[in-house]
Amino acid sequence: MTLRIDRLAVIGVGLIGGSLARALRDADAVGEIVGCGRGKTNLEQAVELGVIDRYTHDVADAAAGADLVFVAVPLGAMRDTFAALREALPAGALVTDGGSAKGSVVDDCRHAAPELLPRFVPGHPIAGTEKNGVAASFAALYRDRRVILTPLAENSPDAVGRVRAMWEICGAEVTEMSVTHHDEVLAATSHLPHMLAFGLVDMLARLKENDEIFRYAAGGFRDFTRIASSNPVMWRDICIANRDALGPMLAGFADEMNELAARIGAGDGEALLEIFDRAKAARDRYVDSS
Amino acid sequence: MTLRIDRLAVIGVGLIGGSLARALRDADAVGEIVGCGRGKTNLEQAVELGVIDRYTHDVADAAAGADLVFVAVPLGAMRDTFAALREALPAGALVTDGGSAKGSVVDDCRHAAPELLPRFVPGHPIAGTEKNGVAASFAALYRDRRVILTPLAENSPDAVGRVRAMWEICGAEVTEMSVTHHDEVLAATSHLPHMLAFGLVDMLARLKENDEIFRYAAGGFRDFTRIASSNPVMWRDICIANRDALGPMLAGFADEMNELAARIGAGDGEALLEIFDRAKAARDRYVDSS
Repeated sequence: MTLRIDRLAVIGVGLIGGSLARALRDADAVGEIVGCGRGKTNLEQAVELGVIDRYTHDVADAAAGADLVFVAVPLGAMRDTFAALREALPAGALVTDGGSAKGSVVDDCRHAAPELLPRFVPGHPIAGTEKNGVAASFAALYRDRRVILTPLAENSPDAVGRVRAMWEICGAEVTEMSVTHHDEVLAATSHLPHMLAFGLVDMLARLKENDEIFRYAAGGFRDFTRIASSNPVMWRDICIANRDALGPMLAGFADEMNELAARIGAGDGEALLEIFDRAKAARDRYVDSS
Repeated sequence: MTLRIDRLAVIGVGLIGGSLARALRDADAVGEIVGCGRGKTNLEQAVELGVIDRYTHDVADAAAGADLVFVAVPLGAMRDTFAALREALPAGALVTDGGSAKGSVVDDCRHAAPELLPRFVPGHPIAGTEKNGVAASFAALYRDRRVILTPLAENSPDAVGRVRAMWEICGAEVTEMSVTHHDEVLAATSHLPHMLAFGLVDMLARLKENDEIFRYAAGGFRDFTRIASSNPVMWRDICIANRDALGPMLAGFADEMNELAARIGAGDGEALLEIFDRAKAARDRYVDSS
């Protein structure tokens, strides 16, 4: 893996963008790093921490002279970012992103900057913490974590290879799948569980004795609902961006809960045991292999 | 708190029963401890570990001469246990239990041994781990944990006071509520979350690319589904025992998921943000105060 990035532009210098910058810097794979964002305090902190060399609030300025642009803005800000890159991306430069849904980001690029599609290689690092902002970023975030690339028909093998090399330098294990398949897999493993946690806590919070209910919640409840403390704005954006995959999966889960309620109502112990056995076996197998 | 138990009978010497025995022994609050169960290996291990002094496989034998009987058998075995205690419980002795649902246990006593109702003080320690058996028991399991007693109209204040004292000696914080209220609170905080975890893992395991899906599951998924590794037989029993409270709550959760699916399908970001904000605020408040 030999990839040398002379100038990297990081649009959105938070946990995801900041950690990529740190990892590439640590690997000595990058010359200059230009940060771009809206919040001055965060960007100044990024310079102080040595995560970026300088910053601008303007996407086109950040992209000028860059050979790689990493877009790590919220999903709701993707379209404007692509619009700003449309005229500004230097010839030969590549764009990749870190968005948690891929169909919506590809659509955003297709609508706002269709000329960029051959040079936009969509990606999603399966990594993160509950924290936000550059102060939470660290170089090892992507080490031994999976990064999914969803290459487009318009991408050249060389473009995909360079983005792959960038993530491998950070220590990630890179795999490729289609945009649609990515969005289904993530709906199942990440977006749906977040909806259950948010939905459960919200439902309990609306019960009339909710203070008492939370008081009696045991340790398992704490783990189970940890993801309900995630950023609400980010999750609103993810839900809307991945609505096509997530909506049907949520409806399917509601059916599963209704069936379980019916089995419980009927006192059908055999059916319940079958479900719980199958779930425990799958969960234990998953933990053993991960 | 001065309570002296001359002879304690523990029916079901697993994590819950074994930990009570250890805690009372450590506090020097008990003379002899007689264990009762079906598995010889577990009971012999309990003697070797010093958790109990001797054992029998017969409930009536275990109760003979005891002044306190702690019933820590699976919910599905409660009725037979009460039937066996009916004639055997010495005059003046008390019975309490550790079952996760209280309505069904009280029903079991009412049907199998109605004469015991005045001396049966139902209880539920909100404590446990994913492990089973006496080897997993430890004296500090109940320290600073909540124990809910659901006293019956038939109980004397003295009987309730003695069971309360027993748990306080173990370091627990004892509260009292009605049987019905207990079952609703536990359905919300424990039984419902377990159903979501079992249901989610089962649904994903039945998807056709389930191997791949579990492969891409991130860290949050591991925490979220930990409780799906719990004992399936125990959970079958809990579901059936607490069906009156749990069934409607599951159906309510299914409605919540269908509403969320509709909001997502409609792209209603404002409604989603409101739900996620409310959930995050409740969850953060709960964590701060616990």
